[in-house]
Amino acid sequence: MTPSPSQTLAGKTIVADAFHAPTRGQVEFLPAAAITLDPDGVIAKVSHDIPDDAIHLPAGHVLLPGLVDLHVHAPQFPQLGSALDVPLEDWLQTYTFPLEARYSDTDFAASVYAALIDHMLRAGTTTALHFATIHLPATRILADICMAKGQRALIGKVAMDHPDTCPDYYRDADADTSVAETRALIDYINHHPDNADRRVLPVITPRFVPACTDACLHGLGALALETGTRVQTHVSESDWEHAHVFDRMGMSDTETLDHFGLLRDHTVLAHANFLSGTDMDLIAARGGGIAHCPWSNIYFANAVFPLRDALARGLRVGLGTDISGGPIGTVWEAARMSVAAARMLESGTDPARAPQERGRDAARIDIATAFHLATRGGAQALGLDVGSFEVGMRFDAIAIDPAAPLGQIVVYGETPPLQLLEKIIYGATKANVARVWSDGIQRI
Amino acid sequence: MTPSPSQTLAGKTIVADAFHAPTRGQVEFLPAAAITLDPDGVIAKVSHDIPDDAIHLPAGHVLLPGLVDLHVHAPQFPQLGSALDVPLEDWLQTYTFPLEARYSDTDFAASVYAALIDHMLRAGTTTALHFATIHLPATRILADICMAKGQRALIGKVAMDHPDTCPDYYRDADADTSVAETRALIDYINHHPDNADRRVLPVITPRFVPACTDACLHGLGALALETGTRVQTHVSESDWEHAHVFDRMGMSDTETLDHFGLLRDHTVLAHANFLSGTDMDLIAARGGGIAHCPWSNIYFANAVFPLRDALARGLRVGLGTDISGGPIGTVWEAARMSVAAARMLESGTDPARAPQERGRDAARIDIATAFHLATRGGAQALGLDVGSFEVGMRFDAIAIDPAAPLGQIVVYGETPPLQLLEKIIYGATKANVARVWSDGIQRI
Repeated sequence: MTPSPSQTLAGKTIVADAFHAPTRGQVEFLPAAAITLDPDGVIAKVSHDIPDDAIHLPAGHVLLPGLVDLHVHAPQFPQLGSALDVPLEDWLQTYTFPLEARYSDTDFAASVYAALIDHMLRAGTTTALHFATIHLPATRILADICMAKGQRALIGKVAMDHPDTCPDYYRDADADTSVAETRALIDYINHHPDNADRRVLPVITPRFVPACTDACLHGLGALALETGTRVQTHVSESDWEHAHVFDRMGMSDTETLDHFGLLRDHTVLAHANFLSGTDMDLIAARGGGIAHCPWSNIYFANAVFPLRDALARGLRVGLGTDISGGPIGTVWEAARMSVAAARMLESGTDPARAPQERGRDAARIDIATAFHLATRGGAQALGLDVGSFEVGMRFDAIAIDPAAPLGQIVVYGETPPLQLLEKIIYGATKANVARVWSDGIQRI
Repeated sequence: MTPSPSQTLAGKTIVADAFHAPTRGQVEFLPAAAITLDPDGVIAKVSHDIPDDAIHLPAGHVLLPGLVDLHVHAPQFPQLGSALDVPLEDWLQTYTFPLEARYSDTDFAASVYAALIDHMLRAGTTTALHFATIHLPATRILADICMAKGQRALIGKVAMDHPDTCPDYYRDADADTSVAETRALIDYINHHPDNADRRVLPVITPRFVPACTDACLHGLGALALETGTRVQTHVSESDWEHAHVFDRMGMSDTETLDHFGLLRDHTVLAHANFLSGTDMDLIAARGGGIAHCPWSNIYFANAVFPLRDALARGLRVGLGTDISGGPIGTVWEAARMSVAAARMLESGTDPARAPQERGRDAARIDIATAFHLATRGGAQALGLDVGSFEVGMRFDAIAIDPAAPLGQIVVYGETPPLQLLEKIIYGATKANVARVWSDGIQRI
C-alpha cells in the first residue's frame, strides 16, 4: 500500500528509511524502520517488524519528523520576500502595521490564512507558533483553518496597547481589552468542538515590551498564571529594542518579562540577539526557549544570535522563519541560514580585520544541530511530544523525495546517509516534500 | 501562439512583461514589451508593435534575462550541498581533488556533466563560466554537452602542476603539459563544427597561483596573449591563499597574475575577498572582473567580499554559485545571499560589540544591484552581448511563473512591479522557471 491524502496511519505501520535527532548534535539514521502507530496517532513501536498491511514509502524517499517553525507572523504572509530595506521600528510603522490592520476584514483574513497554512504544510512545517493580529475574529479564523488543515499550531491574538509606539489605527483600546480578548481566544480554542485532540493551542502574545503598557503586561502575566497558557513574545531583537526597554524599565527586556510573570516554562522568545549571560541564565532557569530567526536577524537585528552560547547555557532553542521579517517562509531556509550565520559570527565578515580580530571563537554549529533545532529542538521549546520517531511521540512527519524533478537537491550515485541528510537540509524546497502527516493523518 | 521546446524565436516577436537591469542599480520594468529577434537570435527591436504571429507568454509570467553564473566547478556537482566542514586547503585535499581525479573516466564525466547542465538550465542559468578538471578528454565532453544543450559556456581545462600543492594522483605532468593541453582545448572549441555561433568559448584556467609553477603561469600568460583567449582563476580567496602567494612571490596574488600576463581584459577572478585597494585598481585598469561567490565565502573565505568597494572602484562584478564550494547551485541563491552577506558586512555579526564597532559602513547592496550582477553585470565581466533586453543583445532569457504550485514565491493580490521582482529574487527556485532560451532558441 502507498499512502494517500486524508488517510490515517492510526493503528498501522509505516516502513521507511528515516532520520531523526532526538538529542542535539546527534542524528540517527533508521534504515527500513517500521514505525507502528496506536489508534490515536501516537508512536507505539519502532522496530523491523513489518506487518502485511504495512505502508511503504516509495523507494528513494526518506522520512523525517515534521518541521517546527517557532516564529511566524501569519498576517505578514502577503509581504513575504519584500519590504526589507528599513530598520525594525520604521518597518513596523511603514509596512507592517498598515498590513496587519487590514485583518479587521475577516474575508481578507480567511483568504490569506488559508494560503499561508497550505504553503507551510506543503513546505513540511507541521508545527507553528503564530502571531496573529490584534483582531479576535480574524484570529479565531486562523485557529479554525489550522484545525481544518491539520497544522499543529499555537495561536496568539497580538496584545499591543501602548499609545507611544502603536498607531491609533492599529492598537488595542486599552490594557483591559488586550487581556479580555486574549482570554476570549484562550476560551475559544480550548473549548472548540473540533479541537478535542488539542492539536491547536492558544498562546498569550504580547507583541513586545515596547508595544505594551505595564498594565497590559501585568494583566497578561496574571492570565498566564491563572490559565497555565503558554506565552510568546519578542526579546532584545535589535539595539533599538534592547535599549528602549532599558530606558523605560531600568532593567533588561528579559528581566522585564520575568517581572510581569511572562517568563515561564515553555515561554518562547523570538530573536534574543542581545541577551546578556544573566538574561540567558534567567530564561534557562524559568524553562523558557528561543525562536532563532537567522534570516530576519540579517535585516532587523544587525547581529547574529549567539546560538552556541545559548545552547551551552541550557536554553531550549528552535528555528523560526519570522514570516515576513525573513524573506523565505520555509524552515529549510532557516536551518541552512542558522549554519551559515553561525559560521559568519565565528569568522566575522570584514576582510580588512586580522583573522583573530574578525570574529568570535567557537560559534559555528553543524548540520546535525540545525536538523535538531528544526525538529525536536523546536518541539522541546514548546513542550510538545513531536519532533522525533520515539515511542510516545505523536506522528508528525514528512516524506522527502530527494530526486524530485523540480527540486534542487543533487544526489549523484551512492551517497552515505549523513551526506544525504546534509544535502537535504541544504537543498530542500517545497518541491521535495512528497507527503506530510500530523497526528498520523496525511495532510499533503 | 505559445512557445515550445527547441522552437526558435529567430525572426519572430515575443510579447511579455519584462524586467532587466542594463545599468547597475537601475531596474527597468517593460510592460507588454514586444521583443523582436533578427534571424540570428539577436534583439532587433524592443517596442509595442505586436505582429499577428507574435508569441505571448502566459498571463502572469514575466520575462527576465537569463542568469549568468561566473564560477562553476563542473566536476564538483556530485558533492553539491555537502563536504563544507573543513578549511579550503583541507577541503581540496580531502574531498575535492579525489572527486576531480575521477574525471579520467570519460563515461563518468559525460554522465555528471549532462546532469549538471540540465540542472543549471532548469534553474535559469543560460551562461556559465566553468572550471573542468585537468583531463582534456573529459573537458572536451563538457564543451560538447554545452553545445548540444544550448548553455552559453566558457570552459577551461584546469591547469595545475605544482608538486608542493597538488597531489601526485591529480596534477598535470609538468608546465609544458598544462600549456599544451590548454592550447589543445582552445583549438578544439574554436574549431568545433557545432560551434559556428561561438556560444561555447574556451577559457585559460590556471586553478590558482598556489597550484601552478611559475613556468605554468608564464606559459599560460603567453598563450593568452598569443590567442586572445579569456582567462579565469581564483584570487585572494582565503587568508591562507592570500598569505601563501605573498610568501612565495613577494607580491600579492593579483600582482602575481598581472606579472605573468594573466590579468587581462575580461579575466574573471573568483572570490577576491582579500584584495587591497591597489589590487582592485590594478584589476580595474586591466579590465578584469570578479566572480563574487557569497555562499562559498561563508565556508572557505572567513570574510565577506567588499562588493560595494569593488563596484565603487569600477571593477566588473558578477555572481558565482561556486558549485560545490557553495551548497546550492542556483544563481537565485547567489543573488539573495549577495544582499544578505553585504548586510552582514555592514552590520557586523557579534552582538557583544557596540554597533559602531561591529561592522563596516556603507557595505549593503539592494535587490536591484543583485539582479544586475546576476544578469548584465556577469555578462559585462565576460564581455558578452547578453544579460539585458536591448537592441543588439543576443536573446538569452527565462520566463518566470511566480505562482508555480511547487514554487516558494508568495504573490498575494496586486503587487507593484518592483515588489514582484524583489519577491522573485528572494523566492525563485527551479520550480518557477517555466521556459529558458539561449540565442532565441528554447532550451527548456
